Amino acid sequence: MSRLNPHEVFVMFLALGVLIASARALGEVARRLNQPSVVGEILAGILLGPTVLGYFAPDWLMFLFPPEGPNAIVLHGFTTVAIALFLLVAGVEVDLSSIWKQGRSAVTVGIAGVLVPFGFGFGLAWLFPQWTGYASVTTPLIHALFIATALSISALPVIAKILMDMNLFRTDMGMIIIAGAVFGDLTGWILFAVILGMTGATATHTMGVVATIVLTLAFAGGMITLGRWLIHHLLIRVQAHTMWPGGVLAFVLTLGLLGAALTEWIGVHAIFGAFLVGVAIGDSPQMRAQTRMVIEQFVAFFFAPLFFASIGLQANFSRHFDLMLILTLLTASCAGKLAGCSLGTRLSGMSWRESLAVSAGMVTQGTMGIILGLLALRLGVIDNRLFVALVVVCLVTTMMSGPLMHRILKRRKTACLADVLSARNFVHRLQANTREEAIAELSQVISQASGLKASAIEQAVQARERIMATGLGKGIAVPHARMEGLTRPFVGLGISIDGIDFDAPDGRPAQIILMMVSPDDDETAQLELIADAARIFRKPENRKNALQAKNFAEFLSLIKSER
Amino acid sequence: MSRLNPHEVFVMFLALGVLIASARALGEVARRLNQPSVVGEILAGILLGPTVLGYFAPDWLMFLFPPEGPNAIVLHGFTTVAIALFLLVAGVEVDLSSIWKQGRSAVTVGIAGVLVPFGFGFGLAWLFPQWTGYASVTTPLIHALFIATALSISALPVIAKILMDMNLFRTDMGMIIIAGAVFGDLTGWILFAVILGMTGATATHTMGVVATIVLTLAFAGGMITLGRWLIHHLLIRVQAHTMWPGGVLAFVLTLGLLGAALTEWIGVHAIFGAFLVGVAIGDSPQMRAQTRMVIEQFVAFFFAPLFFASIGLQANFSRHFDLMLILTLLTASCAGKLAGCSLGTRLSGMSWRESLAVSAGMVTQGTMGIILGLLALRLGVIDNRLFVALVVVCLVTTMMSGPLMHRILKRRKTACLADVLSARNFVHRLQANTREEAIAELSQVISQASGLKASAIEQAVQARERIMATGLGKGIAVPHARMEGLTRPFVGLGISIDGIDFDAPDGRPAQIILMMVSPDDDETAQLELIADAARIFRKPENRKNALQAKNFAEFLSLIKSER
Repeated sequence: MSRLNPHEVFVMFLALGVLIASARALGEVARRLNQPSVVGEILAGILLGPTVLGYFAPDWLMFLFPPEGPNAIVLHGFTTVAIALFLLVAGVEVDLSSIWKQGRSAVTVGIAGVLVPFGFGFGLAWLFPQWTGYASVTTPLIHALFIATALSISALPVIAKILMDMNLFRTDMGMIIIAGAVFGDLTGWILFAVILGMTGATATHTMGVVATIVLTLAFAGGMITLGRWLIHHLLIRVQAHTMWPGGVLAFVLTLGLLGAALTEWIGVHAIFGAFLVGVAIGDSPQMRAQTRMVIEQFVAFFFAPLFFASIGLQANFSRHFDLMLILTLLTASCAGKLAGCSLGTRLSGMSWRESLAVSAGMVTQGTMGIILGLLALRLGVIDNRLFVALVVVCLVTTMMSGPLMHRILKRRKTACLADVLSARNFVHRLQANTREEAIAELSQVISQASGLKASAIEQAVQARERIMATGLGKGIAVPHARMEGLTRPFVGLGISIDGIDFDAPDGRPAQIILMMVSPDDDETAQLELIADAARIFRKPENRKNALQAKNFAEFLSLIKSER
Repeated sequence: MSRLNPHEVFVMFLALGVLIASARALGEVARRLNQPSVVGEILAGILLGPTVLGYFAPDWLMFLFPPEGPNAIVLHGFTTVAIALFLLVAGVEVDLSSIWKQGRSAVTVGIAGVLVPFGFGFGLAWLFPQWTGYASVTTPLIHALFIATALSISALPVIAKILMDMNLFRTDMGMIIIAGAVFGDLTGWILFAVILGMTGATATHTMGVVATIVLTLAFAGGMITLGRWLIHHLLIRVQAHTMWPGGVLAFVLTLGLLGAALTEWIGVHAIFGAFLVGVAIGDSPQMRAQTRMVIEQFVAFFFAPLFFASIGLQANFSRHFDLMLILTLLTASCAGKLAGCSLGTRLSGMSWRESLAVSAGMVTQGTMGIILGLLALRLGVIDNRLFVALVVVCLVTTMMSGPLMHRILKRRKTACLADVLSARNFVHRLQANTREEAIAELSQVISQASGLKASAIEQAVQARERIMATGLGKGIAVPHARMEGLTRPFVGLGISIDGIDFDAPDGRPAQIILMMVSPDDDETAQLELIADAARIFRKPENRKNALQAKNFAEFLSLIKSER
């Protein structure tokens, strides 16, 4: 039997390890800069691929990611399964019922948000193909259809993440955005399936174009109606009669793989089937939180980084970088999306501000645009230059979307302890023995970070403390004050093993003391931080571990794992 | 770049889907028959491989699992990564500190449990190589060393699972078995690494045998000392500074992949590195339950079935079936293990009965023996006949071990509601309005299953009820009685939407009524079932869902997800 020899096995493990490690490391860096992880993960691939590693150390590139032979085939196999599983999870996040719940608004936003950019993109690419990177690798019609689809698609997972971060996910506006994006994505993928059918690029046999398109539509329609009903009922049986949660997990993954096989056989790409299986599974109440979590975590932190990092291996991003093409596509993308979504949201009766925010949210093509580009490249529908331009446009819109919505809505993330604590505002062992000394000691800490005078902080917190003591009980105290001249809250957290009396209702001395000063006009952050601290340290086990933490890293890791 | 064409992508998804689906389905069947899932998973592979599918439909076999070409390579890539991740998880389950805690006993059991079967196996294979399947594919010395290792290895994950099922995992005896098995496994794998080094079969470059052995021992020693310390400290940092729990997940998986790459490069198999990385991670308190659960579930229900099913694809189990060889190896395996373990356990002061139980536990070579056999086959150390014999011996010892221990110790699994309920003893809507009517109605149900007269059951339960009412409060009642002529407990569970008064302390009528009769001399099961019901229905959300369940499957799936 054909198999990998020991050297190839070695290279396979090394390549997978290096790809995931780099992708995750840069993903974390991106997150620190308030960007989606995917931005860093793609960057990792560009660094490891022909663009950077290939430039400085072409031998290493050849060794780690040989373009020919068994290792190239294995890597292609892994990334193909990875992207199918990623789309399965993206499909699971789609809540079909939210489309119906939001009724007319969602459909209006969805249709306008797809049709306008699609029409705009098609017109542009049809009339001026040279502007949109037409390169004679395909017919002008297919090129125009592809550009139109690429410009009208939006990135559901990225949009959902941004809305969650801003606490907008469960609001009416959030649901309209999500529903619009779901509608747009479903339409976009079906359009793309039709395009693939037209090119015949993926047909595994001599099936006619019409047959492929009909089968695709039939499968899509079948999955979101009969398939959905069937899967829901099967899931109940599987959950009742197999080991839990693993039985459901294996069932869902198997369905995803078989769905992928089916659409690949029909002649559209495998990811289409995995996505539709995900959608059909998605809103089944039988998909319990735990099963969902296992799949999502494993896919998001193993398969997704692998896939996104592999994108950078596909092309040389500096050699094929075409600034004019990128700017044209970027402008076209933003203009089409903004016009379409504004129209849709205004028609459905939103205010201008809300309407702008929704449009900003829908602008991101993010991961979906990149996946589309990669498939098109592999199937020969586009060339390297257009592929690189698409990836760059998707990265830019992804990076733009969050900050834009933040700015328009002036929303911010819920404050939480893990985000505001650092090694500098953490006092591992307070020297103070009394409440006054503790406040004075933490005032020093806050003063260094905030630039306010320590004495002023101390005075303000003492004054507040005299009005009403801040011992919450169970060994926690939260002395605080509001002060002028601040733009954001500052905290200091100290631990006292012996405990300090803070007049708690239960009479217990405080061992964990969280002190805060916040801006005069913003009480929300302060309340959120107090709530977060109470939530975490309510559990006796966490209090015990907090007192035993040997350093800040141990303390922080404890707090994080309680999220 | 070399990549899979659409047809190959289709076959890849189909093959993966079919392998996992069949393996899981037969795995569940095995579990129903009180056997480890792995037995069913391997059987699925034998059905899908040359033995059965290849006999009845050779074309299908060629289509789904072609022996040559890109699909064979991709499948080998996936199963190799799968087995490395399985060994990573097996390593995580090893608790190194338990070896030290059990001190002399564990070391005695471990050494005797490895040395005696090793010496026995070596002697047998050296003196009578034709009896142990020597086939001139390697030297007699390597053959003897391999047989000795195969006979002395034990299957830690299977043993741990059996002990947990019997509630012996946290007892002294359980820890001695585990510690002995850990010691045996570590020794066994190191021995195997040495054998591989001697054959030079996996060397990726011209490194000497001595260098390979030295590097292997250095890596093993380094991982369980310095590596363990380093990983523990890195884990704290990773948990503190990355997204949770995914950051830790990706970190652990990356380490596993890189460890696998390193040992493959050294010239021993990749799984050895993954296993040692797992051992080094294993007892770090920073590996929180949630991260551990995500990895274990995904590996156990996606990668492991994939790997174990693929074993059956490797050889024709009927053509290479050699009954004499199997019986010889089986006898040698049991004799060596029983002698060694009995000696060790007796030396450490256990009673004969306990000593026999421990030996029965250690007899199973289970998954580890199979992995060893597969590696040896792939590296040309053994032929198909010996491979098939080893797999069969491992399957038989795995199936033997649990029942043997059960019989010797007369232990049983803790009774739980999910195991005793069935569609036949579940009454979706009780017609009864009073306590007496409810007891009469459920007596009918229990009568059908147990063969006792309904009137006798009713009388006994009523009598018990008069002594003290069995309403637990919160809408739950547990009428019960002990009766002669039973060999095990029988239950009936009925739901009453309007509720029936059972004199509960909180005065609320019972909506969930669990009735039980149990043998005269066994009160344990009854108490365990009552405790299980109380645990599940204590949560208001579960009570609500139980009342809303539309049928038995929905009710059972609710109970299972609360395990």
